[in-house]
Amino acid sequence: MKKTEYHVAIVGATGAVGTKIKELLEQDTHFAIGQLKLLSSRRSAGTLISFRDEQIPCEELTASSFEDVDIAFFSAGGEVSRQFVPIAVRSGAIVIDNTSEFRMHKEVPLVVPEVNPHVLQTHQGIVSVPNCSALQMVTALTPIHHTYGLERIIVSTYQAVSGSGVGAITELLSQAQASLQGEPAQANLLPAKKDKKHYPIAFNVLPQVDVFTDNDYSFEEQKMMDETKKIMELPFLKMAATCVRVPVVTGHSESVYIELAAPASVSEIRELLSRSPGVVVQDNPSEQLYPTPLQAAGSPDVFVGRIRKDPDIPNGFHLWIVSDNLLKGAAWNSLQIAHSLMEQDLI
Amino acid sequence: MKKTEYHVAIVGATGAVGTKIKELLEQDTHFAIGQLKLLSSRRSAGTLISFRDEQIPCEELTASSFEDVDIAFFSAGGEVSRQFVPIAVRSGAIVIDNTSEFRMHKEVPLVVPEVNPHVLQTHQGIVSVPNCSALQMVTALTPIHHTYGLERIIVSTYQAVSGSGVGAITELLSQAQASLQGEPAQANLLPAKKDKKHYPIAFNVLPQVDVFTDNDYSFEEQKMMDETKKIMELPFLKMAATCVRVPVVTGHSESVYIELAAPASVSEIRELLSRSPGVVVQDNPSEQLYPTPLQAAGSPDVFVGRIRKDPDIPNGFHLWIVSDNLLKGAAWNSLQIAHSLMEQDLI
Repeated sequence: MKKTEYHVAIVGATGAVGTKIKELLEQDTHFAIGQLKLLSSRRSAGTLISFRDEQIPCEELTASSFEDVDIAFFSAGGEVSRQFVPIAVRSGAIVIDNTSEFRMHKEVPLVVPEVNPHVLQTHQGIVSVPNCSALQMVTALTPIHHTYGLERIIVSTYQAVSGSGVGAITELLSQAQASLQGEPAQANLLPAKKDKKHYPIAFNVLPQVDVFTDNDYSFEEQKMMDETKKIMELPFLKMAATCVRVPVVTGHSESVYIELAAPASVSEIRELLSRSPGVVVQDNPSEQLYPTPLQAAGSPDVFVGRIRKDPDIPNGFHLWIVSDNLLKGAAWNSLQIAHSLMEQDLI
Repeated sequence: MKKTEYHVAIVGATGAVGTKIKELLEQDTHFAIGQLKLLSSRRSAGTLISFRDEQIPCEELTASSFEDVDIAFFSAGGEVSRQFVPIAVRSGAIVIDNTSEFRMHKEVPLVVPEVNPHVLQTHQGIVSVPNCSALQMVTALTPIHHTYGLERIIVSTYQAVSGSGVGAITELLSQAQASLQGEPAQANLLPAKKDKKHYPIAFNVLPQVDVFTDNDYSFEEQKMMDETKKIMELPFLKMAATCVRVPVVTGHSESVYIELAAPASVSEIRELLSRSPGVVVQDNPSEQLYPTPLQAAGSPDVFVGRIRKDPDIPNGFHLWIVSDNLLKGAAWNSLQIAHSLMEQDLI
């Protein structure tokens, strides 16, 4: 039975993604919100955050934060999710988790509503939002897979700093300011806060996103590979990722190579994607039309351009996929999951 | 017979590459320079440029500029080379040309001295310097090819703005300053000066380098593909490129996927490259050691890191290749060609 309104909590309410979830909820007239709880660390507790006509104080996240909460959006990092998601679920909330903590757990649906809303039916209280880089890619590639069969992906990313949170945005901008003034750029956070060394990102690119795993791939690359296979239900997909941070505030770009099982043409793929949900084709080289992160930022869609045939491989194609990593890559996909749960009577 | 000294001309002496050639010549104690002519457009003629203890005035480039010149370095754009390279050759100079104008001409050697110095023997007055993106890649891949056989390349680039000249550097920096002050970024040059539309590059990435060709690949992508095959003498190499401009001043980065004919291991490739001329391996994920453009800028070497096996393709490997696009990618390679011509008694 559908509820008439939902009590919502945002964990990590002062963060980059939490802020976006709050902004999207403010504008979402289809989402009947009862109570809204804004949860944060002790440090940010008390901060007043405006929501519609109200000023809501942030509360410190504790074990009792989730009483009466129907939907809890988590985006405060893996450690917070590890500790508090089980508590929220036990309190009766459905958790929509933006961290990597539960994504690869067998019983946890990893959901992009345009791709695999059906797996929500199996949820046991936790739904994971995929890694932003995997998320935007599978949104564009799933329609292609359903029509032509996807056999292989090689992807190189151009990832914005906001994927590492508000602090990384500040770091990029202050480094850029220092460089323009001829001063040395201070690096304290990127490429990975918890790693040993930090390098400047302003006027630079860093071939490391998150820490490295044992096989010399970064955790971000491993996440892209593992999560893409899980979401698309293609355990034997051939897939390799190279993840690179670029000095962009918001908007991830991806240079994607795919091999298909069946023959296709560029115009067929353009046509197919132009009628696929959540995807916008921006592809006309003669008009210099292609997506860029600066233009994609602020939009919930996944933009695709530069679609072209590989010169040497019959069913090989190259695409350029761009999306706002905070919106479709996180906050917007989280809200879409909430709506899909409601539409499917799963909440 | 070797000359005791060479009269040298730099065409485009006030440009980004011309300036670097002059700086390298200043430090080059093995290069016996007689007269040095600095040639420019009428606009820059008269500009005084310091060279060692001298102040040399730029002269306007004319049909009579090349009398008594032994070696002429051209880097003033394709149109200048089209018009004046034949005149310089008729005047008896050997031209080392940094533009794309003659690169694909059958009789013109396209030379990376670490890779194919032998083709200089066939020169008829013009030697072309490859496109910077192709150049740094073939420097790293040729030793691998000679040992394991190269069958396929898929490359995505992260190219610095200085590849588009001094004006593009100014454009990036002034756009960055404007963005930091909350003002709109003016775009007048990138992605391609002669194209219709211009987009901001500060805090953005542009999947267009140079204009587009008829097959939806950009001219830069087509150059990378054509020139790599010519330099490596691999006409049937499978190769695809995606060329992207990033907000970096100097230093091109490349995410490169290769497939080899024979089995190899990551440690074998690391070891092979570490003793290859012009290549420096910076590859230790556990120490966060990998090349970045900010660190590579100012060095003549080609840096390679992030070497790792493709998870699904037996002889597939991924590499991250970085080099200073103005040095190895242009000025330094030009000087190396001059030295190779001298060493081989071809001048």
